[in-house]
Amino acid sequence: MLRYLTAGESHGPQLTAIIEGLPANLPLSIEKINHQLWRRQQGFGRGGRMRIETDQVKIGSGIRFGETSGMPVTLVVENRDWKNWEQRMAIEGNPPDDLEIVTKPRPGHADLAGALKYNQTDIRNVLERASARNTATLVAVGAVARQLLEQFQIHVYSHIVELGPIQVGPVEGTIEEIAARAEQSQVRVANPEKEQEIIKLIKNVRKEGNSLGGIFEVVVTGVPFGLGSYAMPDRKLDSRLAGALMGIQAIKGVEIGMGFDAARNFGSDVHDEIFYSPEKGYWRGTNGAGGIEGGVSNGQPIVVRAAMKPIPTLYKPLRSVDMRTKEPFEASIERSDVCAAPAAAVVGEAIVAWVIAAAFMEKFGGDSLQETRANYNNFVSMVKDR
Amino acid sequence: MLRYLTAGESHGPQLTAIIEGLPANLPLSIEKINHQLWRRQQGFGRGGRMRIETDQVKIGSGIRFGETSGMPVTLVVENRDWKNWEQRMAIEGNPPDDLEIVTKPRPGHADLAGALKYNQTDIRNVLERASARNTATLVAVGAVARQLLEQFQIHVYSHIVELGPIQVGPVEGTIEEIAARAEQSQVRVANPEKEQEIIKLIKNVRKEGNSLGGIFEVVVTGVPFGLGSYAMPDRKLDSRLAGALMGIQAIKGVEIGMGFDAARNFGSDVHDEIFYSPEKGYWRGTNGAGGIEGGVSNGQPIVVRAAMKPIPTLYKPLRSVDMRTKEPFEASIERSDVCAAPAAAVVGEAIVAWVIAAAFMEKFGGDSLQETRANYNNFVSMVKDR
Amino acid sequence: MLRYLTAGESHGPQLTAIIEGLPANLPLSIEKINHQLWRRQQGFGRGGRMRIETDQVKIGSGIRFGETSGMPVTLVVENRDWKNWEQRMAIEGNPPDDLEIVTKPRPGHADLAGALKYNQTDIRNVLERASARNTATLVAVGAVARQLLEQFQIHVYSHIVELGPIQVGPVEGTIEEIAARAEQSQVRVANPEKEQEIIKLIKNVRKEGNSLGGIFEVVVTGVPFGLGSYAMPDRKLDSRLAGALMGIQAIKGVEIGMGFDAARNFGSDVHDEIFYSPEKGYWRGTNGAGGIEGGVSNGQPIVVRAAMKPIPTLYKPLRSVDMRTKEPFEASIERSDVCAAPAAAVVGEAIVAWVIAAAFMEKFGGDSLQETRANYNNFVSMVKDR
Amino acid sequence: MLRYLTAGESHGPQLTAIIEGLPANLPLSIEKINHQLWRRQQGFGRGGRMRIETDQVKIGSGIRFGETSGMPVTLVVENRDWKNWEQRMAIEGNPPDDLEIVTKPRPGHADLAGALKYNQTDIRNVLERASARNTATLVAVGAVARQLLEQFQIHVYSHIVELGPIQVGPVEGTIEEIAARAEQSQVRVANPEKEQEIIKLIKNVRKEGNSLGGIFEVVVTGVPFGLGSYAMPDRKLDSRLAGALMGIQAIKGVEIGMGFDAARNFGSDVHDEIFYSPEKGYWRGTNGAGGIEGGVSNGQPIVVRAAMKPIPTLYKPLRSVDMRTKEPFEASIERSDVCAAPAAAVVGEAIVAWVIAAAFMEKFGGDSLQETRANYNNFVSMVKDR
Repeated sequence: MLRYLTAGESHGPQLTAIIEGLPANLPLSIEKINHQLWRRQQGFGRGGRMRIETDQVKIGSGIRFGETSGMPVTLVVENRDWKNWEQRMAIEGNPPDDLEIVTKPRPGHADLAGALKYNQTDIRNVLERASARNTATLVAVGAVARQLLEQFQIHVYSHIVELGPIQVGPVEGTIEEIAARAEQSQVRVANPEKEQEIIKLIKNVRKEGNSLGGIFEVVVTGVPFGLGSYAMPDRKLDSRLAGALMGIQAIKGVEIGMGFDAARNFGSDVHDEIFYSPEKGYWRGTNGAGGIEGGVSNGQPIVVRAAMKPIPTLYKPLRSVDMRTKEPFEASIERSDVCAAPAAAVVGEAIVAWVIAAAFMEKFGGDSLQETRANYNNFVSMVKDR
Repeated sequence: MLRYLTAGESHGPQLTAIIEGLPANLPLSIEKINHQLWRRQQGFGRGGRMRIETDQVKIGSGIRFGETSGMPVTLVVENRDWKNWEQRMAIEGNPPDDLEIVTKPRPGHADLAGALKYNQTDIRNVLERASARNTATLVAVGAVARQLLEQFQIHVYSHIVELGPIQVGPVEGTIEEIAARAEQSQVRVANPEKEQEIIKLIKNVRKEGNSLGGIFEVVVTGVPFGLGSYAMPDRKLDSRLAGALMGIQAIKGVEIGMGFDAARNFGSDVHDEIFYSPEKGYWRGTNGAGGIEGGVSNGQPIVVRAAMKPIPTLYKPLRSVDMRTKEPFEASIERSDVCAAPAAAVVGEAIVAWVIAAAFMEKFGGDSLQETRANYNNFVSMVKDR
Repeated sequence: MLRYLTAGESHGPQLTAIIEGLPANLPLSIEKINHQLWRRQQGFGRGGRMRIETDQVKIGSGIRFGETSGMPVTLVVENRDWKNWEQRMAIEGNPPDDLEIVTKPRPGHADLAGALKYNQTDIRNVLERASARNTATLVAVGAVARQLLEQFQIHVYSHIVELGPIQVGPVEGTIEEIAARAEQSQVRVANPEKEQEIIKLIKNVRKEGNSLGGIFEVVVTGVPFGLGSYAMPDRKLDSRLAGALMGIQAIKGVEIGMGFDAARNFGSDVHDEIFYSPEKGYWRGTNGAGGIEGGVSNGQPIVVRAAMKPIPTLYKPLRSVDMRTKEPFEASIERSDVCAAPAAAVVGEAIVAWVIAAAFMEKFGGDSLQETRANYNNFVSMVKDR
Repeated sequence: MLRYLTAGESHGPQLTAIIEGLPANLPLSIEKINHQLWRRQQGFGRGGRMRIETDQVKIGSGIRFGETSGMPVTLVVENRDWKNWEQRMAIEGNPPDDLEIVTKPRPGHADLAGALKYNQTDIRNVLERASARNTATLVAVGAVARQLLEQFQIHVYSHIVELGPIQVGPVEGTIEEIAARAEQSQVRVANPEKEQEIIKLIKNVRKEGNSLGGIFEVVVTGVPFGLGSYAMPDRKLDSRLAGALMGIQAIKGVEIGMGFDAARNFGSDVHDEIFYSPEKGYWRGTNGAGGIEGGVSNGQPIVVRAAMKPIPTLYKPLRSVDMRTKEPFEASIERSDVCAAPAAAVVGEAIVAWVIAAAFMEKFGGDSLQETRANYNNFVSMVKDR
């Protein structure tokens, strides 16, 4: 059973993750993990910190000569900014005399709810962990999961389908082609015209001190039949994907396949008819279900979308209340990002890869790549015979 | 820690659930559970089975003289149809000689993926469990959760916000008023004009042999600060709500607060400013966040929406392939429901109640209602002092 | 992932269990489950209730025509005594006017701790669930697990190795032979001389109104290499076995292989040397490790022992305190069992079977017996090649 | 809900643990963690490595100015030996040309079972994680748990009760006094005469190249009523303690209270009578139950014992088989420890502290020390009123 824990503060010494349950003898490339961390840091409309931090992973355990041993893998991403925060974020000792504690909760963040829940007078103790900085660990964890999936020709892609008020609209090509174009785009948009329109929008919005959200799509190809289950709600693959995506910072909506549009269409236009040919086995002409029926993967690509809210803005300073004095104030936004949706897409890929990998290992079992592969091949041939 | 398992087939002898982790001395009314089961069976546009089954729960354990003992609660809902299926669904013995096995997978159901995953030649073994019939158990489980929540003045409501192509649009009044009107409506719609429009639509669609989905909204009032956590993605309240809602049959999309619209708006228009008054404590003028910031409840009502796809139709028979012969056929739909979205809203309430109750018990602990209440009161007064 | 929940009170309407995660197409015999329930009710020195209750399981879900569908299996054991308790244990309504509540906690039971934890004034609400009666459900759950294991020639046996002050001492023969003799014995003792001695002891002890505990051994043959893991403490097979056995009512000690004696011997006499032959593969001449090294099964039989304390006695009435009045009293023991250790051995078998089955499914995965079997065969042949 | 993961190899760069679920504002002293790590490294009869490694913990997250923030805590213990192993244990790149892989499985270790399970040709990949070195992380995790417990005057002690063939026998004084004497002893033995006898034995055994195991006792004082539950077997406190202790390397037996001796005594001599006085509340004169009845803590000290097998020896070289050649050989033991039982007692304390802390948080809930304390106080006063 694949499981993981992450830890770390935005301005602490390091972010850490431990992954448990990987099969042994799986080649794991640090370069590939770093590449995913790099992808997360890209995107037009990002602010300063993204340039400070060029995240690099360090492996603390579980890999030897480039392959897993089946034992827990430790991933460490050091915060390069730590040297500037060692006093204010010191682990031991007393706070520095001149420490300024944060008492002003920002609307749209965990600040207020977190300070009350955890009984914190310094909201810094909330924002340090709730920060999107911590998605770096998720991306690293997902980068491990996708290397497992790649062994089985399962690939995870993403692109932006809406950014603020602009819809990218239909894009041509296979998902591989679309993703390849998105990968070249500063805003992960596969349609070059729309890309220009969006970059222009971001520039304008930045001038105004406003911000933008967006909707990204993650597509997974090569997923076999049979991941997830309708036995219990918590085993449904769509349930687990939705939960995982909604757990990413700033995500407010998730949909699968046709998603919300399915609810707006007639039954005659929603479902994916089933065909069979000896070469392809069972196949479909459409994928309104987004690759999942009854909570189980149906051999089609998995298609999910998630909606990211815009980050708070300078444009219209948000009113809030100092928790110490109860005096109102206007929230001073420290951030310089205008739009993080393209980066969120990379986080989305990571978390989707994780969920698929976990469901994969649950179905196929095995403690070494060789064993898991044999189990996988056996099931694939069972399906072929049906 | 609250947990549960459910079991049961659509045409088996009974549906069963076991709930573990309830505090002792909680009054539990069977009548209230039955009322929720009844609500699930209502709705204009429902077919024949809903009339056969008037679900009633039987308690097998965990309750004595109307109160919990802190021990596992067993809920049993007998299938009144069982007598007609005893031969075909027999637990022991051989299949009847004239048994017709199901070999034709229906598009839009678990049929194909389930038959392959579980290596079933008779698809009946798939559809019996994947069936929406099993949401009866979820409703019963949720009906227990909501009786726990009611002890703390936490209430769960729902209404339909879109049905097929028709948007209900803004409705006036408090959520209690809206829900009360929806409760009187055959389609859970709080706007009487739209209600008529929708009923008319359903009638037309039924004539055509087509079907409709819809979008429902669940609102939870009285939720205290501090349920959920940003410590790990799997502890986020929004993550858990999204996962649970997406685990309901036929749900393809979930959103919280402004949801997908948040992604389409500017940052200046999305976030909920924070105010304070000695009487109300921290309060907001808006609720775009849907009651959750940073994965933690923020004292506002929880607002979630879920999109249900339409059930497959007779109108345009869906093409599929017999798994035995590989011959194509046109799927004969046995169902007579046109639209189950109003019923799905009741299921949505149930599952949301469960998630909130589980997060509530996680935060407040306690093994008896008295102990949990004291813990809750203590936290509420801690928050008041901040 | 195999999981289960149980529910039920000793004098409530029924005991219930739901098992989730079984592979599909597994033949499950109700007769075999009933046989295990019957075995649990045997044993010289048992009192009256064992004769009232001839437990029979009813299946509520998950099995059709004698085979699993991969969906949750519901097991129900009705309490035949329920008709005498319907008033006093009523689920709804008020207590009968003449209800005598239990306010006198018995030493050696959950009574006092349970009444305080769950804030119960009537200790009946504690003892009904804490009662050994509920091991019937565990036996039923284990009887399902062992039918899975039998598909892979994994068999679970038990016999009594000590009963009160009498040590059975070495018994001759294979474990199959030992278990067969124990099965014929009224006290699960494989040595006929010791058996007679023990029966005599029980008779004397009964006369005196005293009681006896005992130590039973469970042996599992046919367990493949590789169940459990040293990756994390909670994945160790010995950890899981010890936890499960200690979770049985009245168990106070658990050991594996040489167990406590391993601590008393020199290192030179404890470990099992490793040999190899082309026919047998890796083999051992001894089994001091009890089939588990480093938390992983090593191809040898699993050998565990558990110590059951004697049940409270009439002989020396135990002093206690009425919780209502704080008056001391001498605990009146209602029971008539002198020794339940032979029955506990059957419960031990069941819970051991469950743990092995859960670890087995975790390693081999698969959603149908055919798939799991192919995975198992594949691993066995991988091992043969090493 | 408290949870943790650990990671790390014996000769890798570092051992790591992440703990999730601690309440905020808990003072955590690094010095206290280091003190526990130091205690684990003491003991007469330890070999060379214990002198190389003076373990020190580094905190990677979750603590600021000496207090928890409620967020995951990262604990890192660097392996000082790493510099000598960087080539042979390299994370990336190819193995050094002169790498000697381990192909000779040692009896009594995970070597053979692990190599087959994880399909490893180099047994080093097994022994690195299965090694007792990794108990350092458990001790660090437990050192955090005990700092939580100390806030509630819950204290964890240990001493050796048997070492090899020598029984320490009854020791006088309170557990605090016994533990204090054991703390001064090189072998954690509270009886000075027996201590000398044991040290002499160890010296002799070392000369012979043999080794010794032992039995340690862990006692926890100050545990309130009501931790654990009889609701389900997996919630029983004794079950969880037994599972956790058996998960420690080389442990082969676990008992609680009278343990195995309970099975050998008559019922009249086993159970703890219940008394009441206004000052003390409910109290006992004996503690045969070891502080747990019906799986629930009963206000008495928790008393558990665990049996550690001796480590393999030089005295009588153990026969084994080279996995590459299938040639027999005599296992060359690299170790120089004669007896690690006193150190294992420290590991036992740690894991027991963890289990108690986890059960404590489950019962009392709360997200800050202040909230948890209020909940705890509330329950304690509820109990006082009964």
